[in-house]
Amino acid sequence: MFPEADAVAPAVTAVFTTVLTEGPLSRVALARRLGLSSAAVTKAARPLIELGYLEELAATERTGPGAGRPASPLAIRADREFFVGVKITGDELIGVVCDLRAEVRTSAHRRLSAPDVDHVLTELGELVGELLDRPGGYRARTRRLGLAVSGDVDRSTGLVRYSPFLRWHDLPLREQAEKITGLTVTVENDVKALTTAEHWFGEGVGAESFALVTVGAGIGCGLVVGGRLVSGSHGVAGEIGHIGIDVNGPACHCGSRGCVEAIAGADAIVRQARSAAGRPELTFDDAVALARAGDAPAGAVFARAGDAIGSGIAAVANLVGPARIVVSGEGLAAYDLFEPHIRAGFQRQAFGAAADCPLSIRPLPFEEWARGAATVSIQALVAS
Amino acid sequence: MFPEADAVAPAVTAVFTTVLTEGPLSRVALARRLGLSSAAVTKAARPLIELGYLEELAATERTGPGAGRPASPLAIRADREFFVGVKITGDELIGVVCDLRAEVRTSAHRRLSAPDVDHVLTELGELVGELLDRPGGYRARTRRLGLAVSGDVDRSTGLVRYSPFLRWHDLPLREQAEKITGLTVTVENDVKALTTAEHWFGEGVGAESFALVTVGAGIGCGLVVGGRLVSGSHGVAGEIGHIGIDVNGPACHCGSRGCVEAIAGADAIVRQARSAAGRPELTFDDAVALARAGDAPAGAVFARAGDAIGSGIAAVANLVGPARIVVSGEGLAAYDLFEPHIRAGFQRQAFGAAADCPLSIRPLPFEEWARGAATVSIQALVAS
Ligand SMILES: [Zn+2]
Ligand SMILES: [Zn+2]
Repeated sequence: MFPEADAVAPAVTAVFTTVLTEGPLSRVALARRLGLSSAAVTKAARPLIELGYLEELAATERTGPGAGRPASPLAIRADREFFVGVKITGDELIGVVCDLRAEVRTSAHRRLSAPDVDHVLTELGELVGELLDRPGGYRARTRRLGLAVSGDVDRSTGLVRYSPFLRWHDLPLREQAEKITGLTVTVENDVKALTTAEHWFGEGVGAESFALVTVGAGIGCGLVVGGRLVSGSHGVAGEIGHIGIDVNGPACHCGSRGCVEAIAGADAIVRQARSAAGRPELTFDDAVALARAGDAPAGAVFARAGDAIGSGIAAVANLVGPARIVVSGEGLAAYDLFEPHIRAGFQRQAFGAAADCPLSIRPLPFEEWARGAATVSIQALVAS
Repeated sequence: MFPEADAVAPAVTAVFTTVLTEGPLSRVALARRLGLSSAAVTKAARPLIELGYLEELAATERTGPGAGRPASPLAIRADREFFVGVKITGDELIGVVCDLRAEVRTSAHRRLSAPDVDHVLTELGELVGELLDRPGGYRARTRRLGLAVSGDVDRSTGLVRYSPFLRWHDLPLREQAEKITGLTVTVENDVKALTTAEHWFGEGVGAESFALVTVGAGIGCGLVVGGRLVSGSHGVAGEIGHIGIDVNGPACHCGSRGCVEAIAGADAIVRQARSAAGRPELTFDDAVALARAGDAPAGAVFARAGDAIGSGIAAVANLVGPARIVVSGEGLAAYDLFEPHIRAGFQRQAFGAAADCPLSIRPLPFEEWARGAATVSIQALVAS
């Protein structure tokens, strides 16, 4: 077992988190990095080594100019514990098993016939069982499951307050998922889970501030400021999709007009592409194919959408000034159509040095959402 | 003297800051509030009492149910030290002397003939001298001066990188102001200084996150997240004025179109009011008078401006979710014309529970900018 909550000094958590996200690191480097004495680092590392979470690598490197003693860097034992992560959508469950460093070891998915709670929980139980029974010794070393759900989620209680795509209201998902799987469950909003994955194990590592923007059915944003995920005093944060960028723009489902999502969400793109082509049966993939084939009206729809996203991202940069911004999401399967317009909209609207903020724009394999869910359960272990 | 930097334990700073911004508080209440032992609070308070920054009030209150021992609350001795604050604009210096609790004791101002550096520094030296020589014993107990300047300011080095209204580039203002006044100088961006004043001594006290929006020649924003002022990884933050809310809107001096400032900045309002009235000589005050007299086109200019500000504020609420937002600034002398439209734009564009964020909309006496500057020098004392 991981050291119990009461027994864990802040130094133990700090050493573990730092080795996990930035290691391997020598004790000397850790002490410098954390502003602790070498003795404090040694004391904090001891229980983590005893419990098998950390190991000492062979003492091959030296610790800087003039350092005489060889240092044994501390590293994570990634297979000490495994974590299941599942993303729940309206028609599918995507599951992964990750190790302590959030590397995906195996994955599986299940179609859902409907977002009916009992059906979803039954399928969830079976999916988790299937994953843990695969070769790799997962079952014996897995105690935690992370679930990622779109919408308004209270991570501290595991309650799904409202998930529009799933049509769930005030569902005590953590409690019910713990009953059916026997694992310790953490529930988080999907965009926040993905942001956590990127912050701990991706492009956000070491960044004091960082933003992840997701492009798909909705346009979402996770924000890290001062090293912490921003959650909003009134329960709302990162709603880049409802920044208004065109007072005369199309109506949005939120009741306003010209929101980023009303121009660049998947539904909005389909609607605009249908009207531009005069073909009411057009799908999102049809619109992508048309635009790629050089159809000018379809191309203009993606251009306008990309520009709107870029303008929304510039609002994030102008207000908060993140060190870097990652733009991803299933919508970016059509990455080639969006990217230049996202960059153009961003450059035009970013103020002064805010335009220096690097943007990484890349597609998002759907499995990444499940990995994000697993990351949240890794974080829950560390904070426990 | 305040305890020297090396000698100040974090507990001393925490006790001093908490009594300063939330006191008077008993040692027991402080210990509870800061998660420290009573012994640690007593130890931290001792040098502050010895140096005269804190005092024990008469032991009249008891510390809770069943508490037997009378508690002597700790309070700030507000007149232990005074601070000069000066706001520098293109045509005026506004100066104040504040006590430790940022109460204004006296104020003065000087017209500037031009924002020429030598002229400004000469006038600054004379203004500070005039303030400190007034009755009140200020000179003997003043060691610090805070300066507030619009534009891009590096507080850590005291360098004014760029101030458009003053036309200053890379000016080592701290160094030069220290030479001329003999005081320890802190230089800060004016909006950040005002945000600090509100965060420590105003509506932001105790708020984990908080925003101040200023309406005037420019539209600015100071943001506190996780208890700390957001400064932006690339040196830009709080630039609400250049959030784009109308892709087809008027050109902005930043090179984009439809920015909040291009619709609601003082110049933009004058330009629109002139064109609406067909009177090229109209001033801002004329526009206000027209609108107050019921002139519909002039009223529409303020309505559009207020709506744009509200929409920008909603972007802040949607992204960051501050506990509360204060909207102020010299533009809000025309408060009655703006307020309903700021609220309407905010309500329309705030997403879900973000609309619950309370807005305080109020005029800003110009002296408040100078008080903000003084607050930054109080903060510099505490952090020293
Ligand atoms: Zn919307
Ligand atoms: Zn602009």
